[in-house]
Amino acid sequence: MATSKAIRQVLSGSLLPRLHHTDLSTNNFNSVHAIKTNVNNTREKFPVSMRVLKSCRRVYALQCRGGVFRGKTGVSRAESIGCKCQQAESVSGVTAEDHNETWVMGREESRPSVPVNGTSSALSTEEFGIGEQLKHEKGVLITNGELAAAGTIKDALHTGGVNLIEDEAWNLLRDSIVYYCNNPIGTIAANDPSSSSILNYDQVFIRDFIPSGIAFLLKGEYDIVRNFILYTLQLQSWEKTMDCHSPGQGLMPASFKVRTVPIDGDDSATKDVLDPDFGEAAIGRVAPVDSGLWWIILLRAYGKCSGDLSVQERVDVQTGIKMILKLCLADGFDMFPTLLVTDGSCMIDRRMGIHGHPLEIQALFYSALLCAREMLAPEDASADLIRALNNRLVALSFHIREYYWIDMRKLNEIYRYQTEEYSFDAVNKFNIYPDQIPSWLVEFMPSKGGYLIGNLQPAHMDFRIFSLGNLWSIVSSLATPDQSHAILDLIETKWAQLVADMPLKICYPTLEGQEWRIITGSDPKNTPWSYHNGGSWPTLLWQLTVACIKMDRPEIALKAVEIAERRISGDKWPEYYDTKAARFIGKQARLYQTWSIAGYLVAKLLLANPSAAKILINEEDSELTNAFSCMISGNPRRKRGQKRRSFII
Amino acid sequence: MATSKAIRQVLSGSLLPRLHHTDLSTNNFNSVHAIKTNVNNTREKFPVSMRVLKSCRRVYALQCRGGVFRGKTGVSRAESIGCKCQQAESVSGVTAEDHNETWVMGREESRPSVPVNGTSSALSTEEFGIGEQLKHEKGVLITNGELAAAGTIKDALHTGGVNLIEDEAWNLLRDSIVYYCNNPIGTIAANDPSSSSILNYDQVFIRDFIPSGIAFLLKGEYDIVRNFILYTLQLQSWEKTMDCHSPGQGLMPASFKVRTVPIDGDDSATKDVLDPDFGEAAIGRVAPVDSGLWWIILLRAYGKCSGDLSVQERVDVQTGIKMILKLCLADGFDMFPTLLVTDGSCMIDRRMGIHGHPLEIQALFYSALLCAREMLAPEDASADLIRALNNRLVALSFHIREYYWIDMRKLNEIYRYQTEEYSFDAVNKFNIYPDQIPSWLVEFMPSKGGYLIGNLQPAHMDFRIFSLGNLWSIVSSLATPDQSHAILDLIETKWAQLVADMPLKICYPTLEGQEWRIITGSDPKNTPWSYHNGGSWPTLLWQLTVACIKMDRPEIALKAVEIAERRISGDKWPEYYDTKAARFIGKQARLYQTWSIAGYLVAKLLLANPSAAKILINEEDSELTNAFSCMISGNPRRKRGQKRRSFII
Repeated sequence: MATSKAIRQVLSGSLLPRLHHTDLSTNNFNSVHAIKTNVNNTREKFPVSMRVLKSCRRVYALQCRGGVFRGKTGVSRAESIGCKCQQAESVSGVTAEDHNETWVMGREESRPSVPVNGTSSALSTEEFGIGEQLKHEKGVLITNGELAAAGTIKDALHTGGVNLIEDEAWNLLRDSIVYYCNNPIGTIAANDPSSSSILNYDQVFIRDFIPSGIAFLLKGEYDIVRNFILYTLQLQSWEKTMDCHSPGQGLMPASFKVRTVPIDGDDSATKDVLDPDFGEAAIGRVAPVDSGLWWIILLRAYGKCSGDLSVQERVDVQTGIKMILKLCLADGFDMFPTLLVTDGSCMIDRRMGIHGHPLEIQALFYSALLCAREMLAPEDASADLIRALNNRLVALSFHIREYYWIDMRKLNEIYRYQTEEYSFDAVNKFNIYPDQIPSWLVEFMPSKGGYLIGNLQPAHMDFRIFSLGNLWSIVSSLATPDQSHAILDLIETKWAQLVADMPLKICYPTLEGQEWRIITGSDPKNTPWSYHNGGSWPTLLWQLTVACIKMDRPEIALKAVEIAERRISGDKWPEYYDTKAARFIGKQARLYQTWSIAGYLVAKLLLANPSAAKILINEEDSELTNAFSCMISGNPRRKRGQKRRSFII
Repeated sequence: MATSKAIRQVLSGSLLPRLHHTDLSTNNFNSVHAIKTNVNNTREKFPVSMRVLKSCRRVYALQCRGGVFRGKTGVSRAESIGCKCQQAESVSGVTAEDHNETWVMGREESRPSVPVNGTSSALSTEEFGIGEQLKHEKGVLITNGELAAAGTIKDALHTGGVNLIEDEAWNLLRDSIVYYCNNPIGTIAANDPSSSSILNYDQVFIRDFIPSGIAFLLKGEYDIVRNFILYTLQLQSWEKTMDCHSPGQGLMPASFKVRTVPIDGDDSATKDVLDPDFGEAAIGRVAPVDSGLWWIILLRAYGKCSGDLSVQERVDVQTGIKMILKLCLADGFDMFPTLLVTDGSCMIDRRMGIHGHPLEIQALFYSALLCAREMLAPEDASADLIRALNNRLVALSFHIREYYWIDMRKLNEIYRYQTEEYSFDAVNKFNIYPDQIPSWLVEFMPSKGGYLIGNLQPAHMDFRIFSLGNLWSIVSSLATPDQSHAILDLIETKWAQLVADMPLKICYPTLEGQEWRIITGSDPKNTPWSYHNGGSWPTLLWQLTVACIKMDRPEIALKAVEIAERRISGDKWPEYYDTKAARFIGKQARLYQTWSIAGYLVAKLLLANPSAAKILINEEDSELTNAFSCMISGNPRRKRGQKRRSFII
């Protein structure tokens, strides 16, 4: 039912009314972006054209109308950095010279055509094994491969249940694409026709788009990812305030929305406006710490997959990377190398007791540091940043591997901890009271396997198992190879608890009773075994798959995908599932949640071609390994005493 | 009993064995410090002499022995910034030229003599009304006033109970002085002869020293404060690491310790070494965020009280202020203008659920910003910092006054909150569930009075009343005048709960049962109505007194002091009291806790001369008030929508 309905929607093109004759040509190598548009629908009647020099750090508040390029109040900065306008040519066909990307859309097509990309150093088509990626030479303007492929949807419906689910997923994913000035720039969070309440599900969430972006990359459709990367980069500098307080530059928004507004003095004309949200409008005002980290991870994946390194080499992109890094690496009060954040600053974006140093943020942080190090252009000005980055990598991996890791041996050690040790050599460094060991864990911990705990604070270990943090610690090599295997061992051993009827528990176990009341603040959305509080999230399939592929144990992911396929399409791709065994569709879950769809697709694509997972994986760094070994064997606690020096003024 | 025992200790001089012929002369105006020492006891056999130019940013690891000035490994930085050594003259008498401070100590005296200070712009002796401050002219080398005063202790015992308590307190306070190379630089945390376990109570804690320092200032004894300020400043740059991770420069240690170590190759000779602790050795590894803030507050008080502005004008002190500010004002992820910290990073230095944005830190932060603004030398290089500082002051005061404030009206508003509002205009901005209103508060909240809540996070209000945060919000003018009066109203109305048998509850109410288990992690030291968890702390008397004097309601503080005087001396000045009504001496409380003693003394000194409180008070800034009014009337939420702009790349 859901499938055929979704496909009908796609074929009717009802969700893409605004796409008309458009030519967006971009030349990365000349560092000039030219956007040429001639839109004839009621919403957009103005041709847009502009050129932005590569040297522009940021372009603010630029609007075009009627071929005349205008700067709004506050545009002086943009003007002063050399933006130029050019009268648009009204072209209904495609004319592009010296370009390497072309988007063509029209009412004739039920969905966007395939982008044509330069793939000089991309993973090869063969390597992906997807067969839909299109190589082209400069000068090739349109390919019809994807358009032809669109016609095969009906055929695919007959080739078997699984392909049918995949095809449905692709159609739904394409339906969710959001356009800005006719460019695809992201995917809507959910596209649930049955839901009357929209809240913020009409937004493009940065973290939600990641699996969408990966799916498009793996499919060879690079433009949407490229646009997403560059547009969200623009939003990074947005004036983000709450009651006159601005958080640090470099913060990426949690989400953005394309808003269509009428143009002053012209009732029939409209323009698109990008509205970012940095948490100022978000429920509870949570700051999206993970956004920038995911952005860096996606940027690297884009380069590795498309072979187009020109994006990451752009001056503004390099600056964007550095701004994120500076924010993360800024000096703080904290004694820990881990990032200190408020509750709800990542995938779990509501109060769930994960304030402090939650594992998910640390794993993404570590991964983003490694990705950024690969991409940062070597230059003198970055030397200090690179040094700080390397130092942090060493300290962070030591801290997580040493203090977050738990298995039978470590649990027994904690059980026998002495407390109130004041010294540099304390064994129970964080003064953990053995009473904190939860009773469920005593029974739960298998003799084989282990995991990284959710959080570590003074006198506080959060013993809950958070899936994303553990999986991404494998992917990023934050966990050692032994630890990585042990995490997968745990998932296998505790399959009934962690996967059950729908992969994958976001965390285990749930908070109940007084714990729920005290830790979540009686959150009616995070009731026991629901939503963030022990709910099951299909989107986590993709991170599970990457982790399994990295450890050469894809069969675990395969098994999980098969379980998902039993229900997910019939259940209309819900955001999450409830109950201990994930038997119910989530109480308030949206249907057709984009990242449930994309997560499934990425898992399928990667299992079909495991080597493509390398665009996401960070291999263990041998220098880091050496530094880590030195730290372990050197016993920093003892050495520290020798450093003492006296002072005289 | 306790009194006479303490006095016996003082008179026997048993705690001051190491003080001998010493001449420490310092010339602030020439920015040159000359330390000349000739120590004959077994511990320190080396004369020490050095000159440090004012231009020295920091001096590291300098050690002197046998008149030869040596640099240790790593001293190159110090050498390179122009430190010079000078052969010490062995002088057993006192010879000082061109100085304005003189310390004289000797075995003959049972305690340090009075320092002689320049007080060009100090509050006058009359203003203090203490009568013990000694003015001098340049060239006056020794005054015997204090020495003579020492002989009057026995007389004072007979002048009445209260004077007796004060005198005892002074003697105990002087007993607690810690010396470094014969200079008084702080007070030991506790001096409890009955306690066999030392743990870290032999340290000088920055926050614990503040009331000691204020007491000495009010008494006209400025040197110990000056030394404390300058020595802790040196520690600010200490290489502070935990497992190779260094927190930001600018962090002040939680505490330091003077360690006496043998000099290599000379069994009979020793040297003093300063060992700071930034939380790397602390129980639970808590970072001392409040240390630097208190340091700035004390620095201002020193200048205002002594009139000696040369300390705050020193280049290294100016740099120290800026380093602390930069750490506090550094860009972060957070949407809030409040400082984000881990649990236990202030007076409550164990896990107590005050992670996030605890009021105490915010009040100290606000106060330190105002103090720093007064002291920062106007120069072009500081313009950005001053601008950031001013912006933060406005945002911070708005945030606290608007969102932390609670009274009957606000409580009823929260009780009727809508939840899950996604918008810029949300009334329930932080998505607080009305169920979070604790049952005790419904009964407790008086119709007259109110307070600032303990913490605000996404979906989380900590409704507990934290005394220090509320009191210092009054002192620093972070609370409005109306709010300040309402806080004092609440204290008066709820006297039986908040003051009871011993001022003052550190927080109210206590965490019990499951809350205690979950929030403190079953901390056996923070059991209900004990220690940080609803215990009563006599040291808070001094902050209460300053707040009451500022609001011109000293009678409240007077009443509290009278209650304290009934028991505190007989109970041997414990660190804290337990039980709901503060009837028991704290379960693990040290006796002769220095800041209990000093807190009492400061309260007494200020009540005797209320105008002296101005060295601690920040008056409401009219510019801030205006900016605040504009924010309130301008409704930033609505205005914000108008700022939206579009982006095109």
